[in-house]
Amino acid sequence: MDSYTYLGPEGTFTEAALLQVPGAVQARRVPSSSAVAALAMVRSGEVDAAMLPIENSIEGGVSATLDAIATGQELRIIREAIVPVSFVLAVRPGVEFSGVSRIGTHPHAWAQTRGWVDLNIPKAEYVPATSTAAAAHELLNDKPAYQAAICAKLVAQRLGLDVLAEGIEDNTGAVTRFVLVSRPGVLPAATGSDKTTVAIPLPQDRPGALMEILDQFATRGVNLSRIESRPTGQFLGHYFFSIDAEGHLADARMADALRALHRISPQLRFMGSYPRADAQYPQVPAHTTDRAFDAAQRWLADLLTPGETPEQ
Amino acid sequence: MDSYTYLGPEGTFTEAALLQVPGAVQARRVPSSSAVAALAMVRSGEVDAAMLPIENSIEGGVSATLDAIATGQELRIIREAIVPVSFVLAVRPGVEFSGVSRIGTHPHAWAQTRGWVDLNIPKAEYVPATSTAAAAHELLNDKPAYQAAICAKLVAQRLGLDVLAEGIEDNTGAVTRFVLVSRPGVLPAATGSDKTTVAIPLPQDRPGALMEILDQFATRGVNLSRIESRPTGQFLGHYFFSIDAEGHLADARMADALRALHRISPQLRFMGSYPRADAQYPQVPAHTTDRAFDAAQRWLADLLTPGETPEQ
Amino acid sequence: MDSYTYLGPEGTFTEAALLQVPGAVQARRVPSSSAVAALAMVRSGEVDAAMLPIENSIEGGVSATLDAIATGQELRIIREAIVPVSFVLAVRPGVEFSGVSRIGTHPHAWAQTRGWVDLNIPKAEYVPATSTAAAAHELLNDKPAYQAAICAKLVAQRLGLDVLAEGIEDNTGAVTRFVLVSRPGVLPAATGSDKTTVAIPLPQDRPGALMEILDQFATRGVNLSRIESRPTGQFLGHYFFSIDAEGHLADARMADALRALHRISPQLRFMGSYPRADAQYPQVPAHTTDRAFDAAQRWLADLLTPGETPEQ
Amino acid sequence: MDSYTYLGPEGTFTEAALLQVPGAVQARRVPSSSAVAALAMVRSGEVDAAMLPIENSIEGGVSATLDAIATGQELRIIREAIVPVSFVLAVRPGVEFSGVSRIGTHPHAWAQTRGWVDLNIPKAEYVPATSTAAAAHELLNDKPAYQAAICAKLVAQRLGLDVLAEGIEDNTGAVTRFVLVSRPGVLPAATGSDKTTVAIPLPQDRPGALMEILDQFATRGVNLSRIESRPTGQFLGHYFFSIDAEGHLADARMADALRALHRISPQLRFMGSYPRADAQYPQVPAHTTDRAFDAAQRWLADLLTPGETPEQ
Repeated sequence: MDSYTYLGPEGTFTEAALLQVPGAVQARRVPSSSAVAALAMVRSGEVDAAMLPIENSIEGGVSATLDAIATGQELRIIREAIVPVSFVLAVRPGVEFSGVSRIGTHPHAWAQTRGWVDLNIPKAEYVPATSTAAAAHELLNDKPAYQAAICAKLVAQRLGLDVLAEGIEDNTGAVTRFVLVSRPGVLPAATGSDKTTVAIPLPQDRPGALMEILDQFATRGVNLSRIESRPTGQFLGHYFFSIDAEGHLADARMADALRALHRISPQLRFMGSYPRADAQYPQVPAHTTDRAFDAAQRWLADLLTPGETPEQ
Repeated sequence: MDSYTYLGPEGTFTEAALLQVPGAVQARRVPSSSAVAALAMVRSGEVDAAMLPIENSIEGGVSATLDAIATGQELRIIREAIVPVSFVLAVRPGVEFSGVSRIGTHPHAWAQTRGWVDLNIPKAEYVPATSTAAAAHELLNDKPAYQAAICAKLVAQRLGLDVLAEGIEDNTGAVTRFVLVSRPGVLPAATGSDKTTVAIPLPQDRPGALMEILDQFATRGVNLSRIESRPTGQFLGHYFFSIDAEGHLADARMADALRALHRISPQLRFMGSYPRADAQYPQVPAHTTDRAFDAAQRWLADLLTPGETPEQ
Repeated sequence: MDSYTYLGPEGTFTEAALLQVPGAVQARRVPSSSAVAALAMVRSGEVDAAMLPIENSIEGGVSATLDAIATGQELRIIREAIVPVSFVLAVRPGVEFSGVSRIGTHPHAWAQTRGWVDLNIPKAEYVPATSTAAAAHELLNDKPAYQAAICAKLVAQRLGLDVLAEGIEDNTGAVTRFVLVSRPGVLPAATGSDKTTVAIPLPQDRPGALMEILDQFATRGVNLSRIESRPTGQFLGHYFFSIDAEGHLADARMADALRALHRISPQLRFMGSYPRADAQYPQVPAHTTDRAFDAAQRWLADLLTPGETPEQ
Repeated sequence: MDSYTYLGPEGTFTEAALLQVPGAVQARRVPSSSAVAALAMVRSGEVDAAMLPIENSIEGGVSATLDAIATGQELRIIREAIVPVSFVLAVRPGVEFSGVSRIGTHPHAWAQTRGWVDLNIPKAEYVPATSTAAAAHELLNDKPAYQAAICAKLVAQRLGLDVLAEGIEDNTGAVTRFVLVSRPGVLPAATGSDKTTVAIPLPQDRPGALMEILDQFATRGVNLSRIESRPTGQFLGHYFFSIDAEGHLADARMADALRALHRISPQLRFMGSYPRADAQYPQVPAHTTDRAFDAAQRWLADLLTPGETPEQ
């Protein structure tokens, strides 16, 4: 692909996720101000794909991202990326610790570094910014509103800022998940360690309807790694389910599950099959392998038209 | 078909069931002494099909019949028949009520007419016979062991006996179900009111295995009209399930259920799809019609190879 | 208990099962001519309990026995017994092999010894009897209808007959299950290896109703050792389920399952909790032990009335 | 209750939700800077309860709120509140439309009013604030960073600001859900229209574990109005389920479901039973009413100790 957008401005964790994509370093990369804006650029063809945060994000737009993909013109998730959530304290070159009295950053990042700040710069005054990257950019202005920004290391490097402290997040080890979204086309090839994302409207609000949906996965040995009920619109009480299932549409068990779900809830939306960022392989029960599906199909075909099914 | 066997001797309820089959009146009809013997004649090709009792029978062999079909060389049920269980008191021409002091019949028939006998011939002595038809045949011997037989009307007519009383069963309205069994071949065409019989070995003796099997029917809107756990052999504790399900193998929902069952229990045995004797039509939920299965299949094929699926 | 009935006449396999009951050898034992008659004697108080065949029986009345317990005035199964199905060839003292040209027995026993007879007395003529024990008794008559009876060893011993051959059944290792039935009273104590029998009318004839019933057992880790759909009466299509479940009513998981079933199908009938004849112990998942039920109950009580639940 | 905290500063939608609570207008109300801080005040006893956003919030902390309640010292949700999400454009008294070139607000509010702003003040420059209320407060400063704030009507009224335009949100009809959280104590009385919130760790990461959990609700006729898988900590792949179920702990069906869930996942956390803000009454199937549970319990008790259960 030649061109990408991502949740900007330059230097966000989202851009860091994008840079993991082979070829993205050389490609055209356009920051967007929101997930909705980024997806609009993909839908219009202005860019080939958008990298967006999808979980636990300090860059917002998480559920919003999935909701935006689930509605409107169809899109496909073609890749996921995981980025550690780690912050630095960045300043203009030459500024020292003792010169930091005001700190700018996104409110979520502020919440996640309060422990470190209270311990190390207890008198620091907080100035909110629209993103951690925007906070870093502010430092380049003539009269910045603060002396230091809490941001990703990437943006500090990109802008030539000094890093006074690294790894200042209170909760080390946290990661954020991102997805790369493009227009529908050829699916990424199955790798054996894949994930499939679907949005499934609940057919009726009755006990058991959700069970019926989940049963289609469980009875075919398909594990789920994420499930969320999401309101379908402005009325409380109407839901769809946003689900990540382990496997690829090209796996017989996944295709069979989705066919069954299409019968139960024909408005379901397939949002992509793509390699898992954690590269873990699922345990596939013997009775849900492609081989088991093939054997069952041959057995049945032979019952319907005896003698016409070639043995393998 | 040209030749049939049935549970004999001549004149049994089973032969009455066979005579319901179009063309059977003109065909060759050979009585068998047991279900096992009858099925052996079908398997060897000596006859084209066998009519056998399958439920509530006074002619025995009920579970035995299904077990015999479920094991050994494959066979197919191609038809079912229902016959009212109604008895007559038959005598040699000229014998009168007052001359009846001993009555012969099968023990089950005796049990089902005790009320009438106690009321009408209270002093009658009971003589057991191997079948109601055999009891009637005995009356033709030189010195029959009794003066009257309790049997089906058919055999009395066939043998030229007099009928002293009809409808002498204590429980009116009872019926017996029979099945016509042949070697595997072209399946009877689907009529919309069909039944499918399968034998499914329980994959493991654990809570939930039976549920998993039944779920394959339920989740596809397939109702069951009979289910029995049957021991697989001489050891208590190993089971297979003998099941009648509503629908035909040519119905998408039934084919899909059987494919799933083949994966779970690959040794399952398909024993036939055939018209229901009661001609009742099942209620098929919208999401399990052939149309719903077709739509799901087209949707999925288009996801896998966009643009290649022709619209219908 | 002081008095029993059993499916007679004297010397049946059923009496052999009864003699396994402690004290039965000394007790009054009255043969009955049918399961229905035996249960009537229990219901009227004429005897304390009845021993009846329940599975695979060559003495008939199997499904009939359970159906008879499931309807009418309530009864309880309080014990089960297993008896090997093994036959002897019995004759009057002094009769030899060469003198046997006619053999009497019940049709089911005849079917199960045909292999041996064909090999050893190929020209033997068969004479049906109402039971294997009746066949043996016939030999004591002045002019018996045959020279040999195929029967249980017990009746041969009891009547002082000679046994020409033992173990003549074609299928060695087969067993028959019997149950001892009494009026409702104190339940047999739980042993850890118990069985509970219930009859559950299907609440509605719809896909999923059977699933809902079985789910109540499965979700509580209760394994089933027998399940049969039985027609409720003379109309095809209305069913109840006759079920043997592993465990005792005094087990928390079984009590909880039956409570749930009572809500779903209030007409269900409890037919008894009693020790298993095979003395096998079920595997009880950790989350369905009595301890787990107790812990859950204390947790909940404490939520409802904080501080009032004493710790254990 | 005498004292409350809420997600501040003064005038937030969250405070508007709090003012719906009877007596809250007269009570002490302390703003908190985050959900975590607010819950700490409740846990320490500093205040009696905290009002916090729980869904669709423009005031953040949504999933974070539930996660914070689900871990650490136990807390109880005792009430929910719904507030329409509607914005005003507020200015210092005397400022007119033509004088507005810079607008301050929270990024989420900015995203939800972009349509109106583009149409009415197309050249307006955006200044981010930590909350809509903080943006309003800024206008009272000597030299505010902008002339207008997008905020709730409440805060504009509270601070004596002029409202230039009301209902400027692009998406009318949206609402936010809030919950009132206190220390464990007596539960709010059941009203018949209640909600119960629980957090349930997934016992094992295997196909079917989620089904087993949801089945406990479905089989007892308990509908779910929200379900979310939430990572339990910093490792991807370990989950708990955050669930809102329709009904009260005092309802027999809910108590029974929670007892079952406690056995399956003993670390589950009960987070409260409280009246539904939408005052809708659930449809309770006949077999899951309190009456049905009582009848089942009496039936079972009578089986265990015949004759000792008093009739009602």
